[in-house]
Amino acid sequence: MASKKVRVGIIGASGYTGADAVRLLGAHPHAEIVTLTGNAHAGKKIDAIFPQFAGLDLPVLQKIENVDWHGVDAVICGLPHSTAQDVIGALPTHLKIIDMSADFRLRDASVYEAWYGRTHDAPGLLHEAVYGLSEHYADEIAAARLVACPGCYPTAALLLLLPLVSAGQIDASDLIIDAKSGVTGAGRNLKEQNLFSEVAEGMNAYSVATHRHAPEIEQEIAKAASAEVTVSFTPHLVPMNRGEYLSVYARTRGGARAVDLRATLEQFYTDHPFVRVVDQGVVPATRHVRGSNFCLLAAFDDRIDGRVVLFSTLDNLVKGSSGQAIQNLNLMFGLDPCAGLEQQPLYP
Amino acid sequence: MASKKVRVGIIGASGYTGADAVRLLGAHPHAEIVTLTGNAHAGKKIDAIFPQFAGLDLPVLQKIENVDWHGVDAVICGLPHSTAQDVIGALPTHLKIIDMSADFRLRDASVYEAWYGRTHDAPGLLHEAVYGLSEHYADEIAAARLVACPGCYPTAALLLLLPLVSAGQIDASDLIIDAKSGVTGAGRNLKEQNLFSEVAEGMNAYSVATHRHAPEIEQEIAKAASAEVTVSFTPHLVPMNRGEYLSVYARTRGGARAVDLRATLEQFYTDHPFVRVVDQGVVPATRHVRGSNFCLLAAFDDRIDGRVVLFSTLDNLVKGSSGQAIQNLNLMFGLDPCAGLEQQPLYP
Amino acid sequence: MASKKVRVGIIGASGYTGADAVRLLGAHPHAEIVTLTGNAHAGKKIDAIFPQFAGLDLPVLQKIENVDWHGVDAVICGLPHSTAQDVIGALPTHLKIIDMSADFRLRDASVYEAWYGRTHDAPGLLHEAVYGLSEHYADEIAAARLVACPGCYPTAALLLLLPLVSAGQIDASDLIIDAKSGVTGAGRNLKEQNLFSEVAEGMNAYSVATHRHAPEIEQEIAKAASAEVTVSFTPHLVPMNRGEYLSVYARTRGGARAVDLRATLEQFYTDHPFVRVVDQGVVPATRHVRGSNFCLLAAFDDRIDGRVVLFSTLDNLVKGSSGQAIQNLNLMFGLDPCAGLEQQPLYP
Amino acid sequence: MASKKVRVGIIGASGYTGADAVRLLGAHPHAEIVTLTGNAHAGKKIDAIFPQFAGLDLPVLQKIENVDWHGVDAVICGLPHSTAQDVIGALPTHLKIIDMSADFRLRDASVYEAWYGRTHDAPGLLHEAVYGLSEHYADEIAAARLVACPGCYPTAALLLLLPLVSAGQIDASDLIIDAKSGVTGAGRNLKEQNLFSEVAEGMNAYSVATHRHAPEIEQEIAKAASAEVTVSFTPHLVPMNRGEYLSVYARTRGGARAVDLRATLEQFYTDHPFVRVVDQGVVPATRHVRGSNFCLLAAFDDRIDGRVVLFSTLDNLVKGSSGQAIQNLNLMFGLDPCAGLEQQPLYP
Repeated sequence: MASKKVRVGIIGASGYTGADAVRLLGAHPHAEIVTLTGNAHAGKKIDAIFPQFAGLDLPVLQKIENVDWHGVDAVICGLPHSTAQDVIGALPTHLKIIDMSADFRLRDASVYEAWYGRTHDAPGLLHEAVYGLSEHYADEIAAARLVACPGCYPTAALLLLLPLVSAGQIDASDLIIDAKSGVTGAGRNLKEQNLFSEVAEGMNAYSVATHRHAPEIEQEIAKAASAEVTVSFTPHLVPMNRGEYLSVYARTRGGARAVDLRATLEQFYTDHPFVRVVDQGVVPATRHVRGSNFCLLAAFDDRIDGRVVLFSTLDNLVKGSSGQAIQNLNLMFGLDPCAGLEQQPLYP
Repeated sequence: MASKKVRVGIIGASGYTGADAVRLLGAHPHAEIVTLTGNAHAGKKIDAIFPQFAGLDLPVLQKIENVDWHGVDAVICGLPHSTAQDVIGALPTHLKIIDMSADFRLRDASVYEAWYGRTHDAPGLLHEAVYGLSEHYADEIAAARLVACPGCYPTAALLLLLPLVSAGQIDASDLIIDAKSGVTGAGRNLKEQNLFSEVAEGMNAYSVATHRHAPEIEQEIAKAASAEVTVSFTPHLVPMNRGEYLSVYARTRGGARAVDLRATLEQFYTDHPFVRVVDQGVVPATRHVRGSNFCLLAAFDDRIDGRVVLFSTLDNLVKGSSGQAIQNLNLMFGLDPCAGLEQQPLYP
Repeated sequence: MASKKVRVGIIGASGYTGADAVRLLGAHPHAEIVTLTGNAHAGKKIDAIFPQFAGLDLPVLQKIENVDWHGVDAVICGLPHSTAQDVIGALPTHLKIIDMSADFRLRDASVYEAWYGRTHDAPGLLHEAVYGLSEHYADEIAAARLVACPGCYPTAALLLLLPLVSAGQIDASDLIIDAKSGVTGAGRNLKEQNLFSEVAEGMNAYSVATHRHAPEIEQEIAKAASAEVTVSFTPHLVPMNRGEYLSVYARTRGGARAVDLRATLEQFYTDHPFVRVVDQGVVPATRHVRGSNFCLLAAFDDRIDGRVVLFSTLDNLVKGSSGQAIQNLNLMFGLDPCAGLEQQPLYP
Repeated sequence: MASKKVRVGIIGASGYTGADAVRLLGAHPHAEIVTLTGNAHAGKKIDAIFPQFAGLDLPVLQKIENVDWHGVDAVICGLPHSTAQDVIGALPTHLKIIDMSADFRLRDASVYEAWYGRTHDAPGLLHEAVYGLSEHYADEIAAARLVACPGCYPTAALLLLLPLVSAGQIDASDLIIDAKSGVTGAGRNLKEQNLFSEVAEGMNAYSVATHRHAPEIEQEIAKAASAEVTVSFTPHLVPMNRGEYLSVYARTRGGARAVDLRATLEQFYTDHPFVRVVDQGVVPATRHVRGSNFCLLAAFDDRIDGRVVLFSTLDNLVKGSSGQAIQNLNLMFGLDPCAGLEQQPLYP
């Protein structure tokens, strides 16, 4: 593998997650982009859609049905939910696949149907797929052919909560997750609520008690808790491009305090450079991860006895999407897990 | 009162709350600004500080010690915390006083000392002061000489929670308040964290478990609950000028559901046009109150049984500060409670 | 006129200019909204589209063909370009009409065709229409049945330049207009370039040498200059909701300097409270007009001899659109020209 | 030089330009940060000031007088104007110095005095210093001991204009530069006009006809034009963190048109990957350079005969400051000119 780069195709390169995959892979020392697809823009150069890439030497966008997959080792799929499952189901089997959509995240097809309102077109792949939370399922990811990258909110929530639930330090049955996201979390879709003048200089909650990332969080926490779990999860839209910020309100168990939770998290992530517990007393901020693959965690004692306030922040397009996809690519091909992901945050 | 306007002085007119008091009083049909003080800018016209007021005919700023209070009926005080108590303690007694600082909000001087780290200079006034939550304490406000306007967060929290706690529909011992505020909430102070490049395109929590608005919320909820109360209160800074958004996570009592809470709130605020429960299923947004004196409330059932997600949003400079101050002025002088406050929200 | 209010219909109330007309008319002392049309939303209350209006008592939206125009005195039309001309051509003749689209601004149908790429459907009305620059054409507006409100850029440009060109103080053949606008200038259309993540934290020019507001500016300046005029006009999109800022680079004539230009402007607008020359040395800012009907002007000597730098700023949705529409309504019905337009700027 | 990295000290690392130098050097393959100074923060780790750097292994901040310069090869100086000249004058002579302040940009001490209102403390160094516009003065920079990096506006202006003036295609005596900048251009200083609530949701011009970058632009254009030059230069503050956008209005000479100007620029920058002429008809945008060392140029014919509209955009903290500083470091040490600067733009 020393001299030969992994040859990567990006499917659905005209959205924001696709664009960030291009940005990051463009600087990856051991991987190269050999194929770009984008059905609506087939025949164009990528910089006709994303002018910032005019300096890169990249393949022309083509329709997915026209791709010759022989010279491709892996695919990163940035298609929207529902579309991804059909496309991925039809890909040749020599390809390793990293899917950034929600289509293969839920292991139980009936849960998928309940939340997405449709039957799954590739239920077989659903069972084969590995949930791509890099720091927690590295071995399974390394062995997988199809990796379903977690949603942005679940990544932030699970990196924070899985070690604490596993350690029995917090009560999994009383988790309140107040989540805030920048607008790229909604993609590049033409919806009125994503217009500048609808978002700037204001904020609001959305999808109250109905957001599709809840079952994904519950699926993974339930495994750690060895019990069914329902979480309170409320997302909010904040006038910024990138960044996700989770404030989690939890009850501790066995008298654990913030200092104990911090110790658990620090120990768990000792060898995982992208996840970092900030110094005691420091409140993390989205701007400290902007554009990078980092996730910052923090824990504070609440004034209510037995309660803690926990924070997790990441860039939804990087650690929450394309960055984690590339981290998984690294794991699947035995590369340095940090390769191509060492950009420092862009702040201001 | 028909032909004679209430003559109002604004103390500390060079901050954002002072400026919004000027904006609103400038259009008030039954009140007029007769005095403006601003020690650092004495001798200047207000439009040297706030050029948007160049079209108004306003008195020149003067030092507070130079004011002749004979022709003044009421004072709105926009001084910072700690400064206000000394100035107010020295005002002539014929003046009705509406204070927007925190100095007279807490009835217990020892609680004040614990949170503000200093002894109170006017503890006598502390007992005389009425907590100026207009919709809840209208009679006391009407009879008061000194009204302490609630903080912006407490206004949003209490308008939402007081009727529900009083009705016994939610558990006052398990209230989690996740609050988000625009940057004007921090005033016009020269602090690094308020610089554009520190705030724009990012967000973060602050003052975790230590924010001074918590005891104020607790004081009032305790009265409604007839019990000591500690709340979980976590404020966040959001990149917008105006607006405050509270997401409150609560347990219901006696099997109450969101629909019941909505009914309680609707009934309580039937005759209070500035507080409005939005239509069922609608999520309120700060942009729907920007620049206005409205506060919007909402209630949703959570997916966790017995839990609800509640929302309250207002403009921190209007209903959260200067607007409520003028609403209290109206109450104190027997004017139409809505006078001067009927501006529609500015959106976009 | 004392007791009877002008009964106004708003056509196309679901866009941003329509919404601002509702906001302003909602507080107008001598006019009332009796009809709202919005074909895509017929049957809904306006607050289903603009929740900020939930507190107002407004008629339900209806299709334009279903309106009974008998009880209506005047119409403010907020339809998009091209659509407006057909609708307006079909309205009953007892209605006074104030059109905010571009359809009736250009007096020469061939110029219209050249810039809009289509023939005009109501060329007769084109000649009847009066150009609604309130401070300059008040008499014609007062006598008109159909008033074409100027575009937002032309309003800012012409209020600044017409008096100076008329006075012979600047060279009309060498006018360079660098214009910056907030995003509401593009309306509420679902276009990718208006998405939050395409606009926030960045800026760019657009429509270089091809923007349709250029011929409108030229038409009016040519009249003042008594000569054909071509201007250099370059608009830019800035990440803010409201506000328009024109920096105009001009050569003076006859040795005039900034102080002379200021004198001309001050004299011209002496009795026009909405247009104001800021104090010498002060640079105007969009935030000083936000949400208001004001337009601020300034003039500076450039370092290049014989050159001046001029500024004009207004809120594109108010003085640049709905505010000026209502100002024209006041003129057409003999009301106080300032009625309903005395809101102070909302800053911050 | 193959295995030994250039050892770099950053003086004044607690400002925004210092921080961006840290960000970029942290990923530089042939340079390493061995010293960081910051007098107000001496003794702290850099991540106490800029938490985003917590993942980097960097030296503790120290006072400049305590630095042992023996193990340092080069210094990048991020001190404010006026302070830099004293500090740099006292540095040991074995150091190569790259100054990002304005102190050594103007070759004529009397021009410096006229614009900065003080005599220069190190006039000798003023003559030794090389103006660090990388693409234009590479040979002089390579041979220099002290390089004065151009200001952000001058970099954008000169990269656009120098080739065109040198080619005789535009008239240097009639250049109108309308410049727009994000707020980081003002640094991290505690000034009221840099507060979020003073900047967000608004814009304005500033320093009209008095900005200190004008003489710097004139100095370099005069050399290319072989004539004294005065430019019209008007900066504006735009509510974004990073990015600078220059719209330049010029008269062409000898019948040159935009297509000819584009050809000149394309040819000049053929071997300079950081400066790129965008495709014909494309309007550049700040978001296409955000966080990167690129500068994008464009030329359009104006509607006024003989006039062109030119654009230049860059990230003021990268190509406009720290990026160009590192580009100069590369030139001074014979490294690959692009080393450490190949980050793609971060968009959105």
